[in-house]
Amino acid sequence: MKYPKALSDLMESFQMLPGVGRKSAERLAFYIVTKASKEKVESFSKNLTTAITNIKQCSVCGMISDQDLCDVCNDETRNPTILVVESSKDAIAIEKTEQYHGKYHILNGTIAPLDGVSPDDLNIDSLTKRIDKEQIKEVILATSATMEGEVTALYISNLLKEKNISVTRIGYGLPAGADIEYADQITLIKALEGRKNLE
Amino acid sequence: MKYPKALSDLMESFQMLPGVGRKSAERLAFYIVTKASKEKVESFSKNLTTAITNIKQCSVCGMISDQDLCDVCNDETRNPTILVVESSKDAIAIEKTEQYHGKYHILNGTIAPLDGVSPDDLNIDSLTKRIDKEQIKEVILATSATMEGEVTALYISNLLKEKNISVTRIGYGLPAGADIEYADQITLIKALEGRKNLE
Repeated sequence: MKYPKALSDLMESFQMLPGVGRKSAERLAFYIVTKASKEKVESFSKNLTTAITNIKQCSVCGMISDQDLCDVCNDETRNPTILVVESSKDAIAIEKTEQYHGKYHILNGTIAPLDGVSPDDLNIDSLTKRIDKEQIKEVILATSATMEGEVTALYISNLLKEKNISVTRIGYGLPAGADIEYADQITLIKALEGRKNLE
Repeated sequence: MKYPKALSDLMESFQMLPGVGRKSAERLAFYIVTKASKEKVESFSKNLTTAITNIKQCSVCGMISDQDLCDVCNDETRNPTILVVESSKDAIAIEKTEQYHGKYHILNGTIAPLDGVSPDDLNIDSLTKRIDKEQIKEVILATSATMEGEVTALYISNLLKEKNISVTRIGYGLPAGADIEYADQITLIKALEGRKNLE
């Protein structure tokens, strides 16, 4: 006895998802055929095709959007600042803080020579063009605090040296609520380097 | 800035899956729109609808199947033994051992009064009918070694008392490769109770 084909096909589809192995795919496919309501599965199926059909990248900043221009690029009240992030998810995380009122630029990755990702594979070229066109005053590099994030930030800051704008890197240090005792050494070193005057 | 509707709809669909929370749903939906190939997503969507359309339960034993009768119930060479399990998944796990050559009966759950599951909600009624019709000689109760599994096994064995057949429960004890030192007490007690003569 084997799984019916319709079930093993579905398992295979679930296995394409990140973090879903053979066992999880089995569990999810069984859930779909034995527990889930027919309506919900049908709308799941529809939502998959709608998402890949409708979602594209903003033609200016690279943010995921269902229009040619994303909401931020469409908003003329935004400051002439560009915050450079690795992914649309990162931009949305920052947007949720409601403390940033500038624009974004989505790199869609980091420079990672070991994985074969060079600067040309990223959305960097259009960044330099935007700076002139949109009269940008500051570029904030908000890539991750990882090796790849650092390299990417360094690469972009070199690239922008000739432009007459301020290029900054987001602050490093202890995350809110963190205990010094349990912080790793790199974080502590960066926190010391990033110390500020108390006013 | 919010997620485009097509993306948040897809997140919602992912959230209906067991073990997928808001954060995971976000990650999976982003994977679909930014990394997955269009073909794979389209086949995922198709496999979902095909699965819920084609997969039903075998009209005799309750096993998931894409036909009216499952492969096992269709196989006339099977022994007149019924192994009673909680789910189709359990039956397939036993089938994979290739050591059992009888038939199955899928309860689709266990008796769980606290969750409002009574014997009437399970596929038990048809079991008693099958025993006469298929001239069954033995019923093996292979429900889980949990409180609910035990209660369910006990209920069925009581139900079958009048029938002139052998009713057995699968063996309990140490799982293969287990260390006595780390086994829990219930397992050790069951392993002692289930001791066998060395021949």
